[in-house]
Amino acid sequence: MYRAPVEDIAFTLKHVAGLKQGLDAGAFGDLSEDLVDAVLGEAGRFATEEVAPLYKIGDEHGAVLKDAAVTTPPGWKELYRRWIDGGWNALSGPEEYGGQALPTLLGVAALEMWNSAAMAFGIGPTLTMGAVEALDKHASEELKAKYLEKLVSGEWMGTMNLTEPQAGSDLAALRARAEPAGDGTYRIFGQKIFITYGEHDFTDNIIHLVLARLPDAPAGTRGISLFLVPKFLVGDDGSLGARNDVFCSGLEHKLGIHASPTCTMIYGDGFQGAKPGAIGWLIGEENKGLACMFTMMNNARLAVGMQGVAVAEAATQKAVAYANERRQGKAADYAGAGMAPIVHHPDVQRNLLTMKALTQTARAISYSCAHAIDMARVSDGDQAGHWRDRANLLTPLAKAFSTDVGVEVASLGLQVHGGMGFIEETGAAAFYRDARIAPIYEGTNGIQAIDLVTRKLPLGGGGHVHGFIGELAVAANAVRTSNLQGFGRTADALDAALGDLTQATRFLQKLSADGRAEEALAGATPYLRLISLAAGGAYLARGALADQGRIGLCRFFAENLLGETGALKGRVVDGAESLVAAGKTLISA
Amino acid sequence: MYRAPVEDIAFTLKHVAGLKQGLDAGAFGDLSEDLVDAVLGEAGRFATEEVAPLYKIGDEHGAVLKDAAVTTPPGWKELYRRWIDGGWNALSGPEEYGGQALPTLLGVAALEMWNSAAMAFGIGPTLTMGAVEALDKHASEELKAKYLEKLVSGEWMGTMNLTEPQAGSDLAALRARAEPAGDGTYRIFGQKIFITYGEHDFTDNIIHLVLARLPDAPAGTRGISLFLVPKFLVGDDGSLGARNDVFCSGLEHKLGIHASPTCTMIYGDGFQGAKPGAIGWLIGEENKGLACMFTMMNNARLAVGMQGVAVAEAATQKAVAYANERRQGKAADYAGAGMAPIVHHPDVQRNLLTMKALTQTARAISYSCAHAIDMARVSDGDQAGHWRDRANLLTPLAKAFSTDVGVEVASLGLQVHGGMGFIEETGAAAFYRDARIAPIYEGTNGIQAIDLVTRKLPLGGGGHVHGFIGELAVAANAVRTSNLQGFGRTADALDAALGDLTQATRFLQKLSADGRAEEALAGATPYLRLISLAAGGAYLARGALADQGRIGLCRFFAENLLGETGALKGRVVDGAESLVAAGKTLISA
Repeated sequence: MYRAPVEDIAFTLKHVAGLKQGLDAGAFGDLSEDLVDAVLGEAGRFATEEVAPLYKIGDEHGAVLKDAAVTTPPGWKELYRRWIDGGWNALSGPEEYGGQALPTLLGVAALEMWNSAAMAFGIGPTLTMGAVEALDKHASEELKAKYLEKLVSGEWMGTMNLTEPQAGSDLAALRARAEPAGDGTYRIFGQKIFITYGEHDFTDNIIHLVLARLPDAPAGTRGISLFLVPKFLVGDDGSLGARNDVFCSGLEHKLGIHASPTCTMIYGDGFQGAKPGAIGWLIGEENKGLACMFTMMNNARLAVGMQGVAVAEAATQKAVAYANERRQGKAADYAGAGMAPIVHHPDVQRNLLTMKALTQTARAISYSCAHAIDMARVSDGDQAGHWRDRANLLTPLAKAFSTDVGVEVASLGLQVHGGMGFIEETGAAAFYRDARIAPIYEGTNGIQAIDLVTRKLPLGGGGHVHGFIGELAVAANAVRTSNLQGFGRTADALDAALGDLTQATRFLQKLSADGRAEEALAGATPYLRLISLAAGGAYLARGALADQGRIGLCRFFAENLLGETGALKGRVVDGAESLVAAGKTLISA
Repeated sequence: MYRAPVEDIAFTLKHVAGLKQGLDAGAFGDLSEDLVDAVLGEAGRFATEEVAPLYKIGDEHGAVLKDAAVTTPPGWKELYRRWIDGGWNALSGPEEYGGQALPTLLGVAALEMWNSAAMAFGIGPTLTMGAVEALDKHASEELKAKYLEKLVSGEWMGTMNLTEPQAGSDLAALRARAEPAGDGTYRIFGQKIFITYGEHDFTDNIIHLVLARLPDAPAGTRGISLFLVPKFLVGDDGSLGARNDVFCSGLEHKLGIHASPTCTMIYGDGFQGAKPGAIGWLIGEENKGLACMFTMMNNARLAVGMQGVAVAEAATQKAVAYANERRQGKAADYAGAGMAPIVHHPDVQRNLLTMKALTQTARAISYSCAHAIDMARVSDGDQAGHWRDRANLLTPLAKAFSTDVGVEVASLGLQVHGGMGFIEETGAAAFYRDARIAPIYEGTNGIQAIDLVTRKLPLGGGGHVHGFIGELAVAANAVRTSNLQGFGRTADALDAALGDLTQATRFLQKLSADGRAEEALAGATPYLRLISLAAGGAYLARGALADQGRIGLCRFFAENLLGETGALKGRVVDGAESLVAAGKTLISA
């Protein structure tokens, strides 16, 4: 079973993502390395001892809907209670409302551990944190006073209601309606689907954040407003009042994360004989709902990226343990009696090392993104702008690369288990099932790649990404000048990858400048993987330079996995024409 | 829902795999192209209209065990009956026992269709056909006379009993016992696991082929014998007699292929108060069981490869259909009203084209393997040896590459469906679940790669594989000299891939010659993918030269997917040292 890799996590956030530098420079006030270690250690203990043991029952039992009420799996409600009692929901929440205001990086590291222990558990609070952020940044003082403290503590949970059957990736197609009631409130009508933890028994109240259109709103995304719709109305003293006109009409039957209720929510249909119309309050300005939602979506994307890292870590641990137990065949380097543990077979080692290396690169990228978010918050002027650009650049990588890695690593982990991997009781298949949603929700990975190419490459007049590549090259050079034999051809491999990255980047930037958007879009996904592999390689090198025990895996990655960048560059530079030409044949007459 | 791609299949077997040449040369007697088309058309109709509609209920209902009896999903028993009544089980069975003795290639093409329509259905008869082959080649006339006709018709089904808890990939560890009863029969004792269709309600009798050890047998794989153990004893007149002492004690709860019962079989435990010992008959010679089993395992590997092709085909069809229906966002080339069908987005096209191209390469490789098996059977002398080598060389590619493609394509297909892909009712997730077993059973793909490198590269004194590469180069040259613009840089890409393949092949052959087996094993999996991609590219080119409508996809493959061979060659040539070094760190103290 999963054991939180606290040491690995602490090392990566300090020495790879940059927290050590930030702490040394006093960027985080009186936050000390000791406190960081203590928080990580305690989170690791909770994830390992309290969350992980409930994973299996969550997967097997799932969430159950009856009479519009959702029951979570046995023990999960109590787990959530212990979790918020431990203060974990409040980790990076605003101090003013009872939060501990710790860096996002720490929050993200803890999030990784909750998700490794049980992804269906980790996803719930992520939505609450998104709601906290949206309210904190955009809501009126009145709304904040009424809702924030309980959302920060986790006494209530929050949800995000975006998707409708016809409006998934394209929110412009959204139809839910909001009518002003004349008293400052609104009445919300419509159906929302795929609402994570839209209904459950963890908390007394659930605070829905809902995108809807006002009657006179412009078409498209500029006519969308954000509303707060509580499950139970809240009195001025914080007491729970009447049931609001919103209910869960159905749960999805999903491939994975079974314990996480994915709800169809009905607003304003006259639930339990109510006068139709769910009572809602506007957050931010009318028709500016998407901007409010985007603040939280960016962090939600990073949070989903952490799910990729988390599943990959859990799957890797399980596969390494199994490979050390299971015996089959003979191996050249095994001198013991009887059959060799399969971890001695080179082909099994290849799978396990690939899993470890990909997990660590995804973690390094995601943590670096979190660190950039933190640095943007504590910096001023140009520095703040630099870090904001960095966070924006890394967000699609953290989301898409990490979640692709989650699927890839979970699949390899299942393979390492052989026939047992296909048997549900073994548990390897559950990772393969759970991991598969992360490349889809919070913006599909294809959309992340398009975001990277169309919105992130132009940052800083197109210069920011080259500054980033320059920083990666510093790590490559440091490997070369380290003269450490163990690195093998790592420096050459990094140089080649960064060369591929620079060429592909310039090529895409030129395409955009020339208005050849379609060709740029065709290369977006290969480009996202290219920049992620190159960055991941440099991050592993940075870690290996700080701790020589990490050189072996860094070298394995450089000499076995980084070579893919050449082909990816080729696809970016030369792949579009054949794609666009053949793509037309897919369209039905 | 799945529609059998009869035209595509017919084209590939005739013009890519080589059946047309074989027919024209009279290699298959009076078999005509018309008959081939008629058989494929009728199989396609049956798969589309009869099998595919029962897929979903099979997945949802699964097989159920009660009191040692297994009930298959509603409608499946009747489906099987219609299927054997249609003569489909007898398609490539020996004429002497009522089979139609059609080429393996035709059987494999039909098998693809059964598996696309429902993999859990297609897997069952594969085992029967394996049993037919083993009996036909190795059993006594008496056993043949008693069992073969009913196995060929499908009135009875066969099973293969190899695996035991401690003996999976490594059959040397096998413990099941066989004791001579003194009357020419044996008594079998032991437990077998993962027995596909070990128990079911399709047929009145089930004929188990079981590996077990005689009392005085040498240790290891040279002490294994093969036995026939019927569920019900069979009288000389073919009537069913007493129940044998074998029963199903449990069904696995699997990730996918739910309708296929995966049984734990108990032999010789005194079932229903019987005197302990399942009555069995020796097949072939004592202690030569593994050789008998290997004859059928080779073809079973190809059959599993077809499952990879089959799931990939079904997943691709579903994704292309969905992408033409689902509308989201705007697209540059879509002039219609409202949102564009997502098939217009380049990133979606990239996924779909990748799915199509990989499916077609895997199909081409697998059919070429089947054709080689047929040609070996109808040829004499050196020619027969050549084709046997070819079939042996292509078998690990057909099994491992195709099943990896199955998983990869099913995963992409799920992704194309967005959030709906994660919902079980959509059906995309079921392909992702089903596909995942194929890289594992019948020898894991890692074992296929090792087989390729250690047993297949040395064929013909190491020359056979280079002859094969030479044939692939002919296709590359033909593309170049065709001067067809639509090919773009296809010829260059093929040349580069074949260059990578030649280098990697020579490198591995030299390693083996130098006795550096461990390094060769480290590169085996990348090498298998390398040779498969290069061969697949050449096969697509062969097809495109025969039908210019196929040039676009061939070019997409060459310019977008074939570039991977460079990195794969790098892993083969330069990856082993870092793998072996870092691999040691995975081993628990």
